[in-house]
Amino acid sequence: MILLDGRKTSNDIKDEITREVQEMKDKGERVPHLAAVLVGNDGASLTYVGSKVKACERVGFESTLIQLPHTVSEVELLDTIDELNKNEEIDGFIIQLPLPKQINSQKVLMAVDPKKDVDGFHPTNFGKMALDMSTFIPATPFGILTLLERYKVETQGKHTVVIGRSHIVGRPMSILMGRKGFPGNSTVTLTHSYTKNMKEITRDADIIITALGVPGFLKADMVKDGVVIIDVGITRVPDESRARGYYITGDVDFENVSKKAGYITPVPGGVGPMTIAMLLKNTLLAREQAK
Amino acid sequence: MILLDGRKTSNDIKDEITREVQEMKDKGERVPHLAAVLVGNDGASLTYVGSKVKACERVGFESTLIQLPHTVSEVELLDTIDELNKNEEIDGFIIQLPLPKQINSQKVLMAVDPKKDVDGFHPTNFGKMALDMSTFIPATPFGILTLLERYKVETQGKHTVVIGRSHIVGRPMSILMGRKGFPGNSTVTLTHSYTKNMKEITRDADIIITALGVPGFLKADMVKDGVVIIDVGITRVPDESRARGYYITGDVDFENVSKKAGYITPVPGGVGPMTIAMLLKNTLLAREQAK
Repeated sequence: MILLDGRKTSNDIKDEITREVQEMKDKGERVPHLAAVLVGNDGASLTYVGSKVKACERVGFESTLIQLPHTVSEVELLDTIDELNKNEEIDGFIIQLPLPKQINSQKVLMAVDPKKDVDGFHPTNFGKMALDMSTFIPATPFGILTLLERYKVETQGKHTVVIGRSHIVGRPMSILMGRKGFPGNSTVTLTHSYTKNMKEITRDADIIITALGVPGFLKADMVKDGVVIIDVGITRVPDESRARGYYITGDVDFENVSKKAGYITPVPGGVGPMTIAMLLKNTLLAREQAK
Repeated sequence: MILLDGRKTSNDIKDEITREVQEMKDKGERVPHLAAVLVGNDGASLTYVGSKVKACERVGFESTLIQLPHTVSEVELLDTIDELNKNEEIDGFIIQLPLPKQINSQKVLMAVDPKKDVDGFHPTNFGKMALDMSTFIPATPFGILTLLERYKVETQGKHTVVIGRSHIVGRPMSILMGRKGFPGNSTVTLTHSYTKNMKEITRDADIIITALGVPGFLKADMVKDGVVIIDVGITRVPDESRARGYYITGDVDFENVSKKAGYITPVPGGVGPMTIAMLLKNTLLAREQAK
């Protein structure tokens, strides 16, 4: 069993980006600049945005955090986006989700200039991805592809089963694994809450990508020997014995499934750390395209 | 076995559109207007565009055919598209494919205003479709969904197997069948040239959508009893005994597969006739959105 080590791989990627930023500086070029828009004071959102800002510092990017009150109107938020679209000093920006009820998230995402949409959530970028054109791939799927690529996990002709059809993980992964090239060329089955015979399907899988958020969902009797497991589930389980009061777990019964797996991502330390690294990578791409 | 009759269904849809156009006329409104751009003199392309123009007449739409020589430059074609984008009298337009070598098809499709992209090929529209937003669905997939809908074929929780991952049929069908709602909520497997154990996969399918263009590919021993078959393959087979010198056939060994199928589309007369009806439907939607 080989551990797909997201912590190590994401650090490698951050090191590579740091070197590229240093080269830009050496040439006297402006370094990449990521902006993040945070609406309200949600604890988890603050943590996520905080880690993104910190990651920018780590690799030498400029970063700007724009905090708006939870009472902000849709028009005010759209104005902020318009300014970011026009600001030539900013290469890419993200709108931290979720947004408060008075705001139409879809309208907000549509307002982001696709060229600066480093989250890859804009329909134009999503469509390009589905049509095999070059574009920003959403950070979590991009992180999974990168893990498969760097660990040289064979995907061609394999049966990949994706569990969950969310817009940010399941749907894009099902598209990406079936595209031409590597990683890709898989036969892909997308499963979800209406799927019958889940166990039969996962037992046939060479690669399983699960993004349900149900701790312990994938058990050892649901997989075959040698399976590749990508666990995207992240659930906080309350645990008073820990200083933080909780622990993080994925969708996979890691203890037992890992005994059968060929490759497996741990949780934490698997897909999670990759996500921010790929956001940085997309920002670097945006900077290069803006040159 | 129930025949999914595309000829009848497409005529029903054309009748419905004709009535809507008549209502527009009665109200003194401008009727929908579809333009088609044809580059060169390819026989098949001329036939396709001709049928589209004829279909417009049938339902009372305005239509404009713009013919450009096969030597047209990319810039000239992009200028034509720009004019069509700006022309407020035209609700939607299509660029008949394939285009000659000197022209970058991707660049051309990107130049079409997504609001007038009634073929649904622009990445913005493709991305909206993949993200469950309302948009123009490409005509052939839209036709298949409409057949399933009108014949009330159950799709929820069923295993749908799509054969072929083209941008115009396989890829979009794999997305659409797995979306929320009806038709949709299927467990979807997308297969292609790298797929192993094809027979094993198709034998497990409740619904098979095949778009390979290989006559007789899907045989009776590859399907289970009661399967729903959507045959999108269209191949011209040379046959001197026929006046036209050829006959049209699909991917399915119809004679034998139809004995096991619950529902099946004939070829010709199945998905084919639906395509033009759905192009008209998209043009009607474009007209309504432009109001």
